[in-house]
Amino acid sequence: MSGEDAPAQQQNAEEQKPQQQQQDGESKAESPKTENKPEATPAEPAAAAAPAAASGEAAAPADKPAEEDTFSYRALVLTGYGGYDKVKLQVKKGKPALKSGEVMVRVKACGLNFADLMARQGLYDRLPSPPVTPGMECSGIIEAVGEDVTDRKVGDKVLVLNRCGMWQEVAVVPTSHTFPMPEAMSFEEAAALPVNYITAYMMLFDFGHLRPNQSVLIHMAAGGVGIAATQLCKTVKDVTIFGTASASKHEVISEGGVTHPIDYRTRDYVEEVRKVNPKGVDIVLDPLGGSDTHKGYNLLKPMGKLVSYGAANMLSGQKKNLFAVAKTWYQQFSIHTLSLCQNNRAVCGFHLGYLDSELVTDVMNELLGLYQQGKIKPRIDSTYHLEQVGDAMRRMQERGNIGKIILTTEPMKEEPKKEESKKDEKKDDKKKEDKKKEDKKKDEAKKEEKKKEEAKKEEKKPEEKKPEEKKPEEKKPEEKNEEAKKEEN
Amino acid sequence: MSGEDAPAQQQNAEEQKPQQQQQDGESKAESPKTENKPEATPAEPAAAAAPAAASGEAAAPADKPAEEDTFSYRALVLTGYGGYDKVKLQVKKGKPALKSGEVMVRVKACGLNFADLMARQGLYDRLPSPPVTPGMECSGIIEAVGEDVTDRKVGDKVLVLNRCGMWQEVAVVPTSHTFPMPEAMSFEEAAALPVNYITAYMMLFDFGHLRPNQSVLIHMAAGGVGIAATQLCKTVKDVTIFGTASASKHEVISEGGVTHPIDYRTRDYVEEVRKVNPKGVDIVLDPLGGSDTHKGYNLLKPMGKLVSYGAANMLSGQKKNLFAVAKTWYQQFSIHTLSLCQNNRAVCGFHLGYLDSELVTDVMNELLGLYQQGKIKPRIDSTYHLEQVGDAMRRMQERGNIGKIILTTEPMKEEPKKEESKKDEKKDDKKKEDKKKEDKKKDEAKKEEKKKEEAKKEEKKPEEKKPEEKKPEEKKPEEKNEEAKKEEN
Repeated sequence: MSGEDAPAQQQNAEEQKPQQQQQDGESKAESPKTENKPEATPAEPAAAAAPAAASGEAAAPADKPAEEDTFSYRALVLTGYGGYDKVKLQVKKGKPALKSGEVMVRVKACGLNFADLMARQGLYDRLPSPPVTPGMECSGIIEAVGEDVTDRKVGDKVLVLNRCGMWQEVAVVPTSHTFPMPEAMSFEEAAALPVNYITAYMMLFDFGHLRPNQSVLIHMAAGGVGIAATQLCKTVKDVTIFGTASASKHEVISEGGVTHPIDYRTRDYVEEVRKVNPKGVDIVLDPLGGSDTHKGYNLLKPMGKLVSYGAANMLSGQKKNLFAVAKTWYQQFSIHTLSLCQNNRAVCGFHLGYLDSELVTDVMNELLGLYQQGKIKPRIDSTYHLEQVGDAMRRMQERGNIGKIILTTEPMKEEPKKEESKKDEKKDDKKKEDKKKEDKKKDEAKKEEKKKEEAKKEEKKPEEKKPEEKKPEEKKPEEKNEEAKKEEN
Repeated sequence: MSGEDAPAQQQNAEEQKPQQQQQDGESKAESPKTENKPEATPAEPAAAAAPAAASGEAAAPADKPAEEDTFSYRALVLTGYGGYDKVKLQVKKGKPALKSGEVMVRVKACGLNFADLMARQGLYDRLPSPPVTPGMECSGIIEAVGEDVTDRKVGDKVLVLNRCGMWQEVAVVPTSHTFPMPEAMSFEEAAALPVNYITAYMMLFDFGHLRPNQSVLIHMAAGGVGIAATQLCKTVKDVTIFGTASASKHEVISEGGVTHPIDYRTRDYVEEVRKVNPKGVDIVLDPLGGSDTHKGYNLLKPMGKLVSYGAANMLSGQKKNLFAVAKTWYQQFSIHTLSLCQNNRAVCGFHLGYLDSELVTDVMNELLGLYQQGKIKPRIDSTYHLEQVGDAMRRMQERGNIGKIILTTEPMKEEPKKEESKKDEKKDDKKKEDKKKEDKKKDEAKKEEKKKEEAKKEEKKPEEKKPEEKKPEEKKPEEKNEEAKKEEN
């Protein structure tokens, strides 16, 4: 469990399963697992590590050998493609070397994104092959700076955006990937901001060219990007926002600025939009893919823009569902330019993970300005310890969240929380308790359903939709599937 | 020739050919045709008609029967799909009735657009079936106003944008389709502005979201839209403009603002762009379609936008070339959203003819403001009389123009030109002479080539490109084809 020998770890991954959190919807092993880990792998606490690095502005070469021996940190590692248990908590030893222009960050909080779920299933090709530490964003404190770094110094609080490698206690990144945190920002907020807000901003303002009096359809309006997009729409005058979410989330998203919340579980969102705007909308933000892209495209007004930014419909269950992938791929929207011309429409694709562009820096700075003006504020849904990453992923997968799911690097203890973001965490702890109960219930229902499902499997035709997420107590299978697809992430 | 009985006219179209301008590259009949017409169908001159209407603000019902009998005007009518000769000059009798909210315009000048060429070949479904008067834009003087028209009065100079019906001396349109002409604007300029500038504006600023320091690839940079787009790019700071045009036009387009003119006849434009901007460009304006759309798409930077606004590659020769159409269609760009996401790109389609939107009004007003500030100014390539519409269309088809081709409603006479736009017309007359000589030469070369072509036809494989436009004196067939496709319209 504690070795830095990751490839070996990967080979042994199957045997170690009992120690890890079980897959297939069982989270009972969470407590033993998370309590075991700190014992086996004593992670250097942030408070202790920071002064050590602070003694020299750059990693001090004098005491290097000694320090490298004692330096260790916990890291989440994707050991292979599959279920939640493929992400394991390991301890890495030795102080990472800093190249010129790089900084070492003592990570405080990390953001969870849909791309991480895709990556775990092997559906995201921007993540290097396992073993690899996932995570595209975090916040923390600069612990060391490499040569030629003049714009950051030890002790700076920063938010970080990177291709991967953020889900660990210590991360080394180019200084250009770090941004100073505004004074009032918590580490949770800082970890929640980069991916969701940059995505929402570039989609709405660069591709969408959102202007006053326009209308926007935001799918998964209670998700991380959904809430960011809603807040950003509100920075433009008189924008009408249609937001899909399950009814229980409507109050929150309405307060956040959604003009017309639509419960896609009980309503046809196309009809609902047409009732209010017979001509359709100016912008559709589409994280779903498949048939929903077609629907969104047909909802566009002249000069309307559809921005596709994912294929959440591909994710059905915690393991790669080849059928769901194939179906989403098959139904994936493909458009002919002549058709675009005759309708005066645009189809755009956005994925921050594939974007290596200096544009991101400008947008990030713009966003930090908006934060300081009080115009945007990330909404934290819940905070999980690194040990609980499986639960965190499940919550996103099952669209339980309203806002951002955060991983904290704080060790999991019985003691009361300390220092930064006390408020958020307290709130979150309460939520987590509720969530766990909820999850447990869901898991039990799901297990039962699964048994039934397997029994039925032979009778089913391939045209029918993903069976994995059905629950017996609710609607007929078709409706249920629609639900699972469009719920917030 | 003079009847308003258009369907009969259409049926007789073939028999009347000798009186019309010949097809297949012969323009010798131009003079007889244009001289015949005014005799057979004396069009009411604008000066005489205007006071008649001016006597009553709305069409006066009192003297209606008498006036309707004498009222006549010349109109170009598309009598069927085919070559240049399918557009015939006819005389219509009777004063058009005005509905509430409509105005009658005494047309002074009309704009020629690529869509008109497509329409003549039956490739533009927004034009009603023949017989119909083509033309999407004109300028003129309000001659009568219908009920409830409060924003226009008789005598107002206006530019007009309409779905069709602009190529005639008198046009009735909704008042909302008319825009007051700025004081300093000539009728030619006014007729040149709407379609090209609205198209360029909406593509660059709404879909393209052009910002300072960006780069744009403008195909057919010496064409109407190309010149408009160049001028509009220049209203944004430090925009790099790549413009394709044949070498003879480089001086003019460079003066107009193109940073890097590219002679696509002798160079690979993709390579030329990459030499300057290895990462590509932010916006591609693509009027070509087919394989050029693929090239343009691959030239896009992250967050780049390709705007397709036509399929000029479909037009090969004056009659519908099914092979060119099929090939362009077959090669037409089709894009999958997952690919857009992985590249962070947008593909947009624009066609003003399909755009029924109040957005157009805002853009038009914006453009008139830019004109008054001296930031844009349509460049008139040449002006033709209605009788010469065949020549005008040929000039566009063969990409002879630099800037806009205009049709004037002034009768064709030997006398010196009168009143408005003297300067322009004088210049144009000289140009026309040159052009005619040039055209004649080209036509002869083409005829010869055609014979050879036909002889060769059997041996050729369908994969080879359009044979129609080859000239023996120039490069090998492949190169020649590339030329014809990308030359300015």
